[in-house]
Amino acid sequence: MEVLVPFSTDRPKSRLSGVLTPDERVSLARAMLRDVLDAIEAGGGEPRVLATAPLDAELRCPVDVDDRPLTAAVNAALDPRFDGESTDSDPVAVVMADLALATPGALRELFAAGEAADLAIAPGRGGGTNALVVGHPEFRVDYHGASYLDHRRIAAEVDASVGVVDSHRLATDIDEPADLAEVLIHAEADDNERRSVRWLRGAGFALDVTDGRVGVTRE
Amino acid sequence: MEVLVPFSTDRPKSRLSGVLTPDERVSLARAMLRDVLDAIEAGGGEPRVLATAPLDAELRCPVDVDDRPLTAAVNAALDPRFDGESTDSDPVAVVMADLALATPGALRELFAAGEAADLAIAPGRGGGTNALVVGHPEFRVDYHGASYLDHRRIAAEVDASVGVVDSHRLATDIDEPADLAEVLIHAEADDNERRSVRWLRGAGFALDVTDGRVGVTRE
Repeated sequence: MEVLVPFSTDRPKSRLSGVLTPDERVSLARAMLRDVLDAIEAGGGEPRVLATAPLDAELRCPVDVDDRPLTAAVNAALDPRFDGESTDSDPVAVVMADLALATPGALRELFAAGEAADLAIAPGRGGGTNALVVGHPEFRVDYHGASYLDHRRIAAEVDASVGVVDSHRLATDIDEPADLAEVLIHAEADDNERRSVRWLRGAGFALDVTDGRVGVTRE
Repeated sequence: MEVLVPFSTDRPKSRLSGVLTPDERVSLARAMLRDVLDAIEAGGGEPRVLATAPLDAELRCPVDVDDRPLTAAVNAALDPRFDGESTDSDPVAVVMADLALATPGALRELFAAGEAADLAIAPGRGGGTNALVVGHPEFRVDYHGASYLDHRRIAAEVDASVGVVDSHRLATDIDEPADLAEVLIHAEADDNERRSVRWLRGAGFALDVTDGRVGVTRE
């Protein structure tokens, strides 16, 4: 399955500005992108980055450039793939680049849900749409606001069946300092060494358990 | 499968004190408990509440009272169920009472994982243990701090196989104001009318989308 991975090269991860400099946020965003691309490949998908500007990084997968905002860029990518001529277009997935916890298994579940229904959605914490699979020619995205609810409404309007993927890993986009704790917790639990984990540890981040609540410290 | 549901009658949900009075927190906690018990039953489990004091509410399931802290009370409940005499004790689940998003399907997945491994864990956001199934006679819980990591360590020490349940619904315990948005989002998406949702709406809570971020308002 083709998997579009939107990536903003322009001041990424601004909600981490309290704990990371702009350059650090760029580095972490790149590390997460590479982790997500690896997980997609290992899960049987064919990733294609949809970047707002050319990337200087060497990636193994194709990179398309579209400088428009997320919704417009994704819909412009969907248009030619569902051009109305054919009624049996292959489904296309859209997976966010900051899903640092995404595993091949969780993505496989997403892809399978996208084969089984006209639309599959993995909602994010806070009502976003962290990953979806579009298999209905009339469905288009709208990422503003509580997009999970909007996408379900849009699906109902075009009479598309919907599969919901219930995954903590896919629900966790890395936006805020508390999300960094999720990356470290699951890295420790799984004994993994992804790029984003190495980057965080290299930057001095560690789990911090105080008063029974888990956060991060930086040395 | 027998499913223990620990429930604290004493000042529950203190992290919601910014948005709810003490009486309101008690009401919401009771509504969530009933929702969780319903989901367990519908998922094929046999719930049993483990309360810190007698409950005045009428519940359809048995209630045991143990006024000790969570870890001690759960371990005291596990002891007689794995008494060392039999080597083939049935697995026992422990599901938190504030998993207001829990569905029968998500719990069925937990129970199945607990049949397939010595221990199944559904980690919570922040490294907690929101639900687990204990099938190994030597495993005991320790809920303090990043209990998901501690429980995996304890499992390794007693040589118990571990299944991890990746579920946003089971990862979301309702602790903080932002969690109330999760309850309303998924209620709207699923068009459900659980007690906790009715309670929140009745108390004037509604979703609020400002600047693309989703929270709750109260009228």
